[in-house]
Amino acid sequence: MTITLKVALLGAGTVGAEVARILTQDAAQLQARSGAALELSAVVVRDTAADRGPHIPRELVSSDAEAAIDGADLVIELMGGLEPASTYIRRALSRGASVVTGNKALLAEQGPELFALAAENGAELSFEAAVAGAIPILRPLAESLAGDTVTKVMGIVNGSTNFILDKMDREGADLEAVMAEASALGYLEADPSADVEGHDAAAKAALLATLAFGSGFSIDQVHTEGITAVTAADVEAARAADQVIKLLAVVERSEAGVLMRVHPTLISREHPLAAVHGAFNAVFVEAQNAGELMFYGPGAGGAPTASAVMGDLVMAARHRLAGSAEPTRLAAEPIAALPVQDAITRYALALDVADAPGVLARIAQVFADHGVSIEAMRQNGHLDGAAELRIITHAGTQRALDATVAAVNKLDVVTGITSVMRVEGN
Amino acid sequence: MTITLKVALLGAGTVGAEVARILTQDAAQLQARSGAALELSAVVVRDTAADRGPHIPRELVSSDAEAAIDGADLVIELMGGLEPASTYIRRALSRGASVVTGNKALLAEQGPELFALAAENGAELSFEAAVAGAIPILRPLAESLAGDTVTKVMGIVNGSTNFILDKMDREGADLEAVMAEASALGYLEADPSADVEGHDAAAKAALLATLAFGSGFSIDQVHTEGITAVTAADVEAARAADQVIKLLAVVERSEAGVLMRVHPTLISREHPLAAVHGAFNAVFVEAQNAGELMFYGPGAGGAPTASAVMGDLVMAARHRLAGSAEPTRLAAEPIAALPVQDAITRYALALDVADAPGVLARIAQVFADHGVSIEAMRQNGHLDGAAELRIITHAGTQRALDATVAAVNKLDVVTGITSVMRVEGN
Ligand SMILES: NC(=O)c1ccc[n+]([C@@H]2O[C@H](COP(=O)([O-])OP(=O)(O)OC[C@H]3O[C@@H](n4cnc5c(N)ncnc54)[C@H](OP(=O)(O)O)[C@@H]3O)[C@@H](O)[C@H]2O)c1
Ligand SMILES: NC(=O)c1ccc[n+]([C@@H]2O[C@H](COP(=O)([O-])OP(=O)(O)OC[C@H]3O[C@@H](n4cnc5c(N)ncnc54)[C@H](OP(=O)(O)O)[C@@H]3O)[C@@H](O)[C@H]2O)c1
Repeated sequence: MTITLKVALLGAGTVGAEVARILTQDAAQLQARSGAALELSAVVVRDTAADRGPHIPRELVSSDAEAAIDGADLVIELMGGLEPASTYIRRALSRGASVVTGNKALLAEQGPELFALAAENGAELSFEAAVAGAIPILRPLAESLAGDTVTKVMGIVNGSTNFILDKMDREGADLEAVMAEASALGYLEADPSADVEGHDAAAKAALLATLAFGSGFSIDQVHTEGITAVTAADVEAARAADQVIKLLAVVERSEAGVLMRVHPTLISREHPLAAVHGAFNAVFVEAQNAGELMFYGPGAGGAPTASAVMGDLVMAARHRLAGSAEPTRLAAEPIAALPVQDAITRYALALDVADAPGVLARIAQVFADHGVSIEAMRQNGHLDGAAELRIITHAGTQRALDATVAAVNKLDVVTGITSVMRVEGN
Repeated sequence: MTITLKVALLGAGTVGAEVARILTQDAAQLQARSGAALELSAVVVRDTAADRGPHIPRELVSSDAEAAIDGADLVIELMGGLEPASTYIRRALSRGASVVTGNKALLAEQGPELFALAAENGAELSFEAAVAGAIPILRPLAESLAGDTVTKVMGIVNGSTNFILDKMDREGADLEAVMAEASALGYLEADPSADVEGHDAAAKAALLATLAFGSGFSIDQVHTEGITAVTAADVEAARAADQVIKLLAVVERSEAGVLMRVHPTLISREHPLAAVHGAFNAVFVEAQNAGELMFYGPGAGGAPTASAVMGDLVMAARHRLAGSAEPTRLAAEPIAALPVQDAITRYALALDVADAPGVLARIAQVFADHGVSIEAMRQNGHLDGAAELRIITHAGTQRALDATVAAVNKLDVVTGITSVMRVEGN
């Protein structure tokens, strides 16, 4: 006896088309792995007239999502955007169909509601593809580390910005030049703002925190800074200090709650995240017992993202056959999201100062007055009697650092603060 | 209502003691995650008189494994070795208890039998701790990549040998010196042969292949070479070519079957595995759709390994409560294990040759005659009229390479072949 599960595919673009290909090409293997024949029963798109190639038979294509959903056991949502994706996913879950999605934008807004709806209906809502493309990270966080306590996750979760920063680092070029090139190579969206301003990474930060800490978080709770202010001089200074600048999504747990932030970050070149080049992604996890783990791979692209979708689909099918759906369950007591002012990190500052005796002492005193302790200070004289001062602090709160920066800025010997950047890792 | 699951712990050494600690210290969180109170019901050791600290109450300690197993819902085996571990695991599985183990030696010999016994009894046999310590690799391979086709896995799965090779690379020291130091630092077993001769890595290679390809493989099917022949000169030559030498466990799938091998390997310094330093482990996975993934973390140690054990335990508990055990299922048709002669890789050779006209041509001809194509050739002249020739080949079979080496060795212009090493990655 062959059991058949009907699969509705909502969206057949970059990722959806690859999912359709794999469903056709690897049908026998997928059946062996999942225990059921996975039959593509409907493909929903906007443009129903377009030819979609050999893996998407014309007769399955329509724009009628409701009919597609109502006729399916498993629904794959790869349209993107909030609506109508949200309405469709809710419809599928309400009918008890398990849903697989790669829609980080939607989940970072409505994740907790959607998980609850899935759990109510004994259905699964899986979303491995939504964070770091092909990299298995959500299942390891939720299952492999189920017996451990994750304290911090740091991810390079946006390929475009990593490509840009990596090129700036390798070539010493400045942001505009590299962006123009990345754009020409097709590495940037037509509107790159979601990438370079950090919003895409922020959505993923909210999802990583949700999985790592088992409570619902949304994108508006994530402090977000993009890479637009990173200069060739910052990259060069980092290089001189044997560091590299990466756009990191950092989520961490303390007694008080969870802190989520996305910003350009200095890390040592010895740190495993420093070896993540080009458009690759990686997620670095700190857990109480496991120590430091890292997961690395392609963060986007049709086939890699489809791989993650298919893993979720096979597991959803298995669970459906066994009647053992494993809905994502969040803590009954939500965990607080903390303001970025509470963030505790090290900082690297660059100041333009007068090159005169006593300047260092006065600046150091301001740091001391605000309880921010200095790890290293280095002065590079200029020709014109001015100097550049680079300061690395020990860990302190953003609150204390901000107050320090404001006070330092008022000193008459300080001409300007040219860069303030957070430092992660040892 | 609280459901309680009784947990028997067989072995309370490096890893077992940490498992007992976590079971006590994190009891509330483990209960929330698994759905049941996980109660340590028995601890089995050899020396029942020893004080085992606050997390192992005296009254639970005994040497009566049978009674411990028969009174438990979940059994954790952390004794190591083939017997009595095998007998105990079989007893537990036969009673329908799920078993968590870190025993790579046992699984690499008897894995398929034990998986079958587990499946027959609707029990789970989990072993994330057996490969690469804390690194979640088995669940990602079996679940996250369930919808993809893994073609190759390359792992740095032995921390001691990576520590040694990394030190040789950083310090230019030779093997004996570094081994003496590693030994003094406690990084080496009293008898380091299982590590340096590659047997530990070979057991893990068999397990990786079993999970990646869904068929049972055993350690005696793995071609195994250790690091004992690696010289400071090899390391130096690698460095000159911007490469590094790592002991890799390589398992790969072709139409014909699965090839498993453990040997020192040259990889480019740009390869993600090259950035794995000290005693860390990493597993690099190539899959048809996902592309290249890497999983990185501590490969051993009490707490990290216990983290992997606890993840397995929580999932086993969840599945037990839901009646949805997910036994490892291997392919009905076993996949053939191929002889190492069929391995297709690139090679780097070092030869001592006479520094005379026509030598290169004669040697190149021998390669051509055997169908082995040369990618690069470099000659370093010596003072005494002799020269060292370094050759990198394109990919070819080990069979062809061996025949080539034998024929080259017979040429009168060749004084000796000083090194033959496989090259992986691009
Ligand atoms: N691309 C990646 O590398 C990647 C990586 C990770 C996650 N994701 C996520 O995966 C999802 C899909 O991404 P993608 O790159 O495949 O998108 P895409 O190429 O833009 O494809 C979107 C598909 O959805 C269809 N669609 C959009 N709105 C629709 C509507 N209102 N009604 C019916 N069909 C509609 C489109 O139809 P037409 O073909 O007729 O226009 C198209 O087939 C997004 O959530 C994205 O964030 C993508
Ligand atoms: N250590 C690591 O970092 C690591 C990493 C990955 C996997 N593993 C695997 O985990 C397992 C445990 O390793 P470990 O390092 O924790 O070993 P260990 O420190 O040698 O501890 C072994 C424990 O088992 C007990 N034991 C051994 N033989 C026994 C027998 N016949 N009857 C009753 N008790 C017996 C010992 O009792 P006594 O205390 O009375 O001697 C001891 O408590 C092994 O399979 C190992 O390969 C270890």
